[in-house]
Order: sequence, then C-alpha cells, then structure tokens
Amino acid sequence: MKILIDGMGGDYAPEEIVKGAIKAAKEIDEKILIIGRESQIKLYLDKYKYRGKNIEIVNASEVITNDEHPAMAIKRKKDSSIVKGMNMLKEGEADVFISAGSTGALLSGALLLLGRIKGIKRPAIAAWFPKIGQNDQTLLLDCGANADCKPEYLYQFGMMGSIFVHCIKGIDKPVVKLLNVGAEDAKGDELHKTAFDMLRDSKANFCGNIEGRDIVFGGADVVVADGFSGNVFLKSSEGVALCLMDMIKSKLTEGVAAKAGAVLAYGKLKDIKSEFDYADAGGAPILGVKGAVLKIHGNSKEKEVYWAIKKAIPYVQKDVTGMIAQAIMDDEINQESAEEIIRNEM
Amino acid sequence: MKILIDGMGGDYAPEEIVKGAIKAAKEIDEKILIIGRESQIKLYLDKYKYRGKNIEIVNASEVITNDEHPAMAIKRKKDSSIVKGMNMLKEGEADVFISAGSTGALLSGALLLLGRIKGIKRPAIAAWFPKIGQNDQTLLLDCGANADCKPEYLYQFGMMGSIFVHCIKGIDKPVVKLLNVGAEDAKGDELHKTAFDMLRDSKANFCGNIEGRDIVFGGADVVVADGFSGNVFLKSSEGVALCLMDMIKSKLTEGVAAKAGAVLAYGKLKDIKSEFDYADAGGAPILGVKGAVLKIHGNSKEKEVYWAIKKAIPYVQKDVTGMIAQAIMDDEINQESAEEIIRNEM
Repeated sequence: MKILIDGMGGDYAPEEIVKGAIKAAKEIDEKILIIGRESQIKLYLDKYKYRGKNIEIVNASEVITNDEHPAMAIKRKKDSSIVKGMNMLKEGEADVFISAGSTGALLSGALLLLGRIKGIKRPAIAAWFPKIGQNDQTLLLDCGANADCKPEYLYQFGMMGSIFVHCIKGIDKPVVKLLNVGAEDAKGDELHKTAFDMLRDSKANFCGNIEGRDIVFGGADVVVADGFSGNVFLKSSEGVALCLMDMIKSKLTEGVAAKAGAVLAYGKLKDIKSEFDYADAGGAPILGVKGAVLKIHGNSKEKEVYWAIKKAIPYVQKDVTGMIAQAIMDDEINQESAEEIIRNEM
Repeated sequence: MKILIDGMGGDYAPEEIVKGAIKAAKEIDEKILIIGRESQIKLYLDKYKYRGKNIEIVNASEVITNDEHPAMAIKRKKDSSIVKGMNMLKEGEADVFISAGSTGALLSGALLLLGRIKGIKRPAIAAWFPKIGQNDQTLLLDCGANADCKPEYLYQFGMMGSIFVHCIKGIDKPVVKLLNVGAEDAKGDELHKTAFDMLRDSKANFCGNIEGRDIVFGGADVVVADGFSGNVFLKSSEGVALCLMDMIKSKLTEGVAAKAGAVLAYGKLKDIKSEFDYADAGGAPILGVKGAVLKIHGNSKEKEVYWAIKKAIPYVQKDVTGMIAQAIMDDEINQESAEEIIRNEM
C-alpha cells in the first residue's frame, strides 16, 4: 500500500507533516510518499534524522494556497502537490491521498481529476465532530461542498457516511441521523422532509432527525446535512467553543486569588480541552469521488498527521470507495427493477 | 399604555411571571395586565403582597402547552391566555403582548388572529444572541418561523430587524449582515446569493455576509437568516455552550486539589455565565404581524419578565409595527414607480 501525503498543505507544512510521517513510518510497513518541494521536505527528514526506508519524496514544485480560486488553481498549477497527488491516485501510483491543504482545491481537484463515482450525484466533504464525554466522534457530511442540495444528494450522503464509518470504526450498523430544526419526524423544509422519507427507506440504519444542540452529546455516528446548514452548524459550534475557552482562560488568570485557583484548576481545564482533541479520529474523507482522499485540518501538527496516516490504512484495505460504488450500483439496480415491476404491473 | 403579559406561559408560570410584573410595576406607570387563571395569579399577587394599582388580572381559563399542535390549539382553546391575549391586542385593549409560552402557538396565534402587515410576505421570529465581552446583543431573525424561505423574505427580515433594533436600542443605522457559509460576497446557495443582492440594494445598512463563528464576537446588530439555518445556528451554539459549561463545572469540582482551585476560580466562572445572561435585552419580537408580540424564553424568571415589560415600552411608544407597515408601503411604492419608469422607458 502506498500512502501519499501532501507535504505542502496546512499551516505547519512541511515540518509537521514530515514529523507525523516519520512517527507513523516507525509503526507501519506501508510505504509513505510525501509530495511537495523535495529540498524542503528533505531538509526536515534530515533535521529529524530519518534513516528508515519506507518514506519517499515525490517532487512537486508548485503550491496551491488557501487564497487561490480552487478550480482555477487546479487548472493552472499542474505541478502542485494537490494536482500531482490526485493524478498519482488516479494512475494507481498511490492508494490514498492525505492533505491539510485548501479544502476547496482538494474538492475541485478530486472532482476534476478523479471524477465522481458512477451514480453519485454530488461528492460530500465530511468532518469529525466530538461526542463529548464519550471519547468518540460523529461523522458530519456534507460540511460545505454543496450549498444547494437536493433530497437525493442527502440520501446518498447518508449511504456513503454509513459505509465509511462502518469500515473505519468497525461499527456494524452506524446510527445515521439528519440535521434538522426539530427531532420529530416531518420537521423542516421541503428538502429535509423529502430527504427524511428517502433515508427512512434506505439501507442505512436511519434513526430520524437530530437537532444541532444534541450532536455534541452523541447520539449519532453519522449526521447528514445539506452543505449550507452543515457548514453553519460546524462554524457556529466552533465559534462558541473558541469564545468560551478564551473567556475561561482569561477569567481564570485575572486577579491574584483567581490566579491561585487557576493553577489548581488548570489541569482540569486541560482535560476539557483534550475532549475536543480528536486527532485520533484520523482524516475526514471527501466521499463520492473515484479515489480515497482524506482531508485533515489546516492547523494539523505531527499528531494529526500521524493519525491520518494510520487511519488511512483501513480506508484502503476495506476499499471504501469500491464499497460505495457497489452500493450505488445495487441501489440503481434496485431502483430500476422497482421501476420495471411498476411498469409491468401497469 | 397597557402591557399584557401571559400569566400561564413558560416553565415558571405563573409565580415568576407575577414576581416580574410586581418588580416592573414598582418602576413604571403603565398598566400591566396579567392574563391567565385568575385564582392562580391572585394567589401569587397575595403571596408577594402586591398592594399597587397598576397590575390587573384578565381571566383566561385555558392553557396552551408546548406539546400541543400550535394551530390546532389556537383554533380550539378560545379561552386560553394566548388566544384571548392576541384578541385583546387586536381590539386595542392592550398595546403589547408578552409571553414565555409555546413559540409555535404564539406564531400561529399572531398569524391567525392578528394577521400579517400588508405587504409582508412572512413574519419572522427573532432572538437575541450575546456579543461576548461587549455587554450587548445581536438580533437574529428568522429563528425558525420559516423553514422554507425565498430571497424576498430575507430582504424583509433585514428591513424589519433593522427598524426594531433602531427603535429599541436607539442605534442610528444598525449593522445588518446575512448568515452565510463565508464572509465574502457571492457565497452560499442561490437563496442567499439573491438575498444578498436584494439586501445590498435595500435601505438597511447592509454590511455583507457573516459566518456563524463570528456572530458571538459581535460585528452585527442584526443577523438575517433563513428559518432553517437560523434555527440550526441557535441550537448548535446553545448545545456547545451548555456542554462546555457543564464540563467546566464538573471538572472543577472533581478531586480535592481541583476543588480548592474551584472555590477560588468559582467567582470568575460566574462572570462568564453572566456574559451569557442577556435578560436585560428584553423580549424578542415576532415581526411582521399586526401587533406588538414579544416572546421570552420558556425558562424565564422574575428578571427576564421584568426586563421584557420594561423594554416593551419603547416597542409601543416608537410604534415599531406602524414603522414597519410604513416602510413596506414606501418600498412597494418605490418598486411600483421603478416598474412604471421601466415600462415608460420601453
């Protein structure tokens, strides 16, 4: 197996990418390919005294930044780590591609260079969200690839998310829920009402609607959302969490008595922060494209890179992409035969 | 002025409603009418030894609960505090109606019994959201009255929210922003792209898009949202905030050393909680209906009721409802004359 990682993506590239790769390389037999500017990557492999044999560098001279127009950058920067990485994935020169780079560019690259799985209407960007107190995470999709959604997209997101979580986490029948404005059935706008009916009739273990406030408390392994409200959900939660943690930190270190208290309470606050640390979940996939693409956060460091590489292995071994392709084919066949039955009965 | 308050709505009714009314009655000259089961309300007026003259009870024998189907309950329970209250507002027997009862029933009641302001496409439910560290709040609308929105609804929400905040908070030109998946122009789905263009051309002080994560840090006086994502935003933020505060509380009181720290740090944590206490913002309006209806949270206590009554006064005095009606009329005239000009030019 060849695990390809983008050496140029993210706030701490290439140093932390290289560190994470070295850490993973010590534990796994798979080949790790770091793609990016060879000299820079080599510098850090030397700095951290890498002497092993399962890390290789693939040179790519260009870098796509977060400020660039994603589709434009993909078309223009042929020698960028993302374009070259996607092409290697396509040609079978790598089995999975991990990147902390621009989400937009990764999505565009996956769409333009790998293409959609036959039958998949729209690919989805997934993200992990912590189930607090459970040392576990929920997979949320779509997080923003598709601002305008149709019910059938949401139906397919549920199916893809379910297969991914089943394969990566080994959960037999992941609990799939739909992000909605109420937990009761028949809630929401036309899009979500129709998606609800479709998901209920799907093969996924669909367990109804979930409200944004309940996701953090666990209760779903997969949360299906349209790209607009999925994105609003993620960013709102992030905003409130950041704001509260900042306030706690500043309040606890304000004044002498409080400072004394803070020293004592500080360890506990660290515990809280660690609840939000879900690096060990690994990367979040772009699902629905013809290849295994995993996105890690732009601020990923050694630990996140390490876990992304480790968790990429079951993604490839279980052939999630192939399973999705098969499921969608079966689904189409089912739909076709259902249509045939209806035709014959009329 | 007659301020009517629902004595039966909310988790702590009627006791806390009565307490809040008594507290307000000591400070204001306006007549306060408490509507609900007379004997129960009288019990608490006696318990808290109310001897003044500006609180009156209006008897209403029925109560609409949160579990009932809103429109159905409005049609059936003619002698409920909500139905009778709305009718009093309609007949001019009260100038504003405050309730901590079922949001759905209030919206249904307002729509069915008061009706929409001429020209308003859809009424909106607003909510206050804290601007952390600024002792101030943002008005968010719509929070869930309209799961399915059209761009013109969002345009009108911006106009109504702007007028309300201008009147209640005395801000000359409230900053209006649109909840979207990115802060840049031309973000989002078709709905939000079109709404953006309409808001930009409106009389409101429209300052572009805002992401969910930035609302808590201030930056907008009014945030316009479609009812679906507005609701997702509110509930997600609430979920994360509740979860974090719970964790902090439990972590800080876990273990002996931490406990000692907690005692010292406790006062500071109270400060944080108070940042989220925005009772003094008053009630949040249902905008776009022919009457002043203010909703307060279901868990409102004396303080929230007191502030809702106090802040109801400028709502009535400034005639927000009349101003919205006027603005929408001017808007229609403008649109008609624009259409006429176009016709004449062709």
